[in-house]
Amino acid sequence: MAGLTRLQCRSLMRLSGKATPLVHQQFTNTPPARQASTQAASDGSKKERIVILGSGWAGYAVGRTLKPSRATRILISPRSHFVFTPLLASTSVGTLEFRAAIEPVRRLNLDEFHQAWASDIDFQRKVIRVEANTRGDVGAVTGVQLTKGTEFEVPYDKLVLAVGCYSQTFGIEGVKEHACFLRDIGDARIIRLKVLAAFEKASLPTTSDEERRKLLHFAVVGGGPTGIEFAAELHDLVRDDLSKLFPDLKRFVAITIYDIAPKVLPMFDQSLANYATEMFRRQGITVKTEHHLQRIRREGDYLMLKVKELPDEVGAGVVVWSTGLTQNPLTSHLLGREIEGLGKIAKDPRTGGIVTDEHMRVQLEPVQSQNADGAPSDAGSPTTTLPDVFAVGDCTAVKGRNYPATAQVASQQAAYLAKQLNKGEADSPSSPPFKFRNLGTMAYLGSWRAIHQSGKDELKGRAAWILWRTAYLTKSMSIKNKIMIPVYWLITWIFGRDISRF
Amino acid sequence: MAGLTRLQCRSLMRLSGKATPLVHQQFTNTPPARQASTQAASDGSKKERIVILGSGWAGYAVGRTLKPSRATRILISPRSHFVFTPLLASTSVGTLEFRAAIEPVRRLNLDEFHQAWASDIDFQRKVIRVEANTRGDVGAVTGVQLTKGTEFEVPYDKLVLAVGCYSQTFGIEGVKEHACFLRDIGDARIIRLKVLAAFEKASLPTTSDEERRKLLHFAVVGGGPTGIEFAAELHDLVRDDLSKLFPDLKRFVAITIYDIAPKVLPMFDQSLANYATEMFRRQGITVKTEHHLQRIRREGDYLMLKVKELPDEVGAGVVVWSTGLTQNPLTSHLLGREIEGLGKIAKDPRTGGIVTDEHMRVQLEPVQSQNADGAPSDAGSPTTTLPDVFAVGDCTAVKGRNYPATAQVASQQAAYLAKQLNKGEADSPSSPPFKFRNLGTMAYLGSWRAIHQSGKDELKGRAAWILWRTAYLTKSMSIKNKIMIPVYWLITWIFGRDISRF
Repeated sequence: MAGLTRLQCRSLMRLSGKATPLVHQQFTNTPPARQASTQAASDGSKKERIVILGSGWAGYAVGRTLKPSRATRILISPRSHFVFTPLLASTSVGTLEFRAAIEPVRRLNLDEFHQAWASDIDFQRKVIRVEANTRGDVGAVTGVQLTKGTEFEVPYDKLVLAVGCYSQTFGIEGVKEHACFLRDIGDARIIRLKVLAAFEKASLPTTSDEERRKLLHFAVVGGGPTGIEFAAELHDLVRDDLSKLFPDLKRFVAITIYDIAPKVLPMFDQSLANYATEMFRRQGITVKTEHHLQRIRREGDYLMLKVKELPDEVGAGVVVWSTGLTQNPLTSHLLGREIEGLGKIAKDPRTGGIVTDEHMRVQLEPVQSQNADGAPSDAGSPTTTLPDVFAVGDCTAVKGRNYPATAQVASQQAAYLAKQLNKGEADSPSSPPFKFRNLGTMAYLGSWRAIHQSGKDELKGRAAWILWRTAYLTKSMSIKNKIMIPVYWLITWIFGRDISRF
Repeated sequence: MAGLTRLQCRSLMRLSGKATPLVHQQFTNTPPARQASTQAASDGSKKERIVILGSGWAGYAVGRTLKPSRATRILISPRSHFVFTPLLASTSVGTLEFRAAIEPVRRLNLDEFHQAWASDIDFQRKVIRVEANTRGDVGAVTGVQLTKGTEFEVPYDKLVLAVGCYSQTFGIEGVKEHACFLRDIGDARIIRLKVLAAFEKASLPTTSDEERRKLLHFAVVGGGPTGIEFAAELHDLVRDDLSKLFPDLKRFVAITIYDIAPKVLPMFDQSLANYATEMFRRQGITVKTEHHLQRIRREGDYLMLKVKELPDEVGAGVVVWSTGLTQNPLTSHLLGREIEGLGKIAKDPRTGGIVTDEHMRVQLEPVQSQNADGAPSDAGSPTTTLPDVFAVGDCTAVKGRNYPATAQVASQQAAYLAKQLNKGEADSPSSPPFKFRNLGTMAYLGSWRAIHQSGKDELKGRAAWILWRTAYLTKSMSIKNKIMIPVYWLITWIFGRDISRF
């Protein structure tokens, strides 16, 4: 369905002319964007320039849902693709091809796409300052770009902030340097290379058994769905594939999940969490709740972990970090600053995110109302709307709501907003507010078993696994990936997982 | 067929016990290899340890053809996979998935595999000194490994040298630093990222038209099949996919092939080479024969090429180097040195390769017979056989023959040798000698057209293209890739090439 829409959009775009973004010419210091010259309106109408920042669950969904007939659609993102995050763990162990989990933004055939970081926004002039990022990888955690890209400005009529979050490392020593994250396709690739390299190293005749035990210990920090699913997929890889290719190494392999909370998978009811823990116990995956990682350091080919509750350091070949989110620097920058004559963007005291109303419109609070004692500013303080600026996804906190930072929330907010923009009602106070519809939560547990919870409904085992796979197929991927994903699953089932490294 | 053999081998291995390599214990300074302890013979028989160096067309084919019942099969290679080189160009432009062009060595289920460089060979003690390479990529051109790996020794009863060649850069300034090669899967990945990044950079509103012309000029140095096929595949990518995603950039794109020879594709008859040149001309690919590249230097985001025959430097976004081979350092090292009491390994004066007889046995020449004036030592000088050491593929020169350094020669030599080893007749002077059977040469020219030549038989156009694709499917790939490659071709045909970057 979604893919069809995209094909249709493409045809529509070819038929309809594109309006000239006249506003483009008004700004100094900025050469007119290349696109400006090529989008001369053939029908003479002037379409609004809607600029979306971000290509994650929120930004990509806005981009694909906006109608080309309604607006000039511009997307700015440091990465050139959307990542279907629930499949990342599968790609990291070779069950799925990397490309099956991503969708190139260019394939949306938007009016403009800039692979760039947004470094600042001038809400009065309505321009975004961006810095090109065409040199490849995105530092998803640190945001570090090795060389500075060209800077330029992009004007907007309406702006959608969908910049997401960064991983939170809580300042723990060595995490940024030595742990792997699992947020982008590049992360999955690195994990994959490290896991396979650990096995190759362990198989060397010069490696001692003690070193093998360290190299083949895979530590996961964080017992949420990402960490749990990665541990499950890794377990499948070891049991189904690596144990056959490295039969002598099987006895050295260990997988441990560390979490500071008293239980893993907090979003599931106790019975499902217990089922997961029991399944993991039987599969030999150790779950250590109420354990605090304090430091990671490198020692030769492996890492040494200091965990508060354990007397000795623990060796590990790979550490996957899957806990905690923090606002990204642009969000912090925008929230920390007064907009002349308007006030400040309201900041959610719990998440540090951008406060919006139930129409996803960014909220302002008077500068003097900012209270230093940390009392919630989103509850009672009077807010006003920042005109033409919207925010969706993980960087957002809807006033008076407590939505979790999940793909489901982000994509529903994006779909809601894009439809309002398509109808031209995003600014209308009488339009219906956003309502989150909880479609349930799922987690894969390995060995073709999963858990699923939707309100009071629970499902576990093989049936939940079938639901898990089906859900992924019907979700927001292109037709191409909808065809390829089952092909990969079949091929993996017949021939085993891919173990090539490059 | 080939894939079936592999599956059968695997079953056979499980049924048959593996003999203890007793010889393994005799060497000092070397911990007994891990595998030694796990391969205790259940049938009490002692199998020969056959060690293969290399996992290219020659080494991989020997490994997959050797019968597990006849020998303990050990493969040593710095890379963990075999690359199906004729498909590299396709993967570099996204027509095929990277993995479709490689086969992991571990999947052969040999008795031992060491991902390592062979640094030296003691032919008297019959041990190979190796250095582990588990840190990832192989520097295919320079052989540079960033950190030194663990060193250990691997003993052999029979040794097969199949180490191949390196790319020859003729000492031209900037080639190693700035040009891309197309010999391993990592090279294809780098080219792909650079081509797509060049388009993203060119699409920035801050990029001038002059810069666009430089960024989107793709230069190929070398007019052999690799260079020609890459140019053709790149042209397809630009015409079919990128010109739709970047419609305004199409007019800046240029592809040029530089060659020092008076004609490209020297292995084809003039009429076919003319057909190729004419096809390229119509597709807008420029072929500049008798042009000598003298230097490449970086200037910002693009490269500047100094070509002897051109007055001004030429800008280019990506330079692909596909000309010339040179012996790898191990070959040079082995050839440069006397083996005490035996003589020196005979060196082919034309290629610098290892001289073998027509049974692929490495030949020795007396030390005093070495002539400094460069007169051919392979023609008349008396040679003797180095016992239990064989050489196949690009590192080899069969005495009195002039085989080209192609995949076809390498794989036929490998199949011949492995069968002789299986029969236990590799040392027998009465066994039939190796005979090369020329199956013809093919090259893809873009737009679903190819040329094929086999002796006097010529085929060109669409029919040759169908033959080209069919030949690849029946060649030495696993069943998995035989299934996946047509799937990818179909998917690419329907949805276009993959343009995601990671």
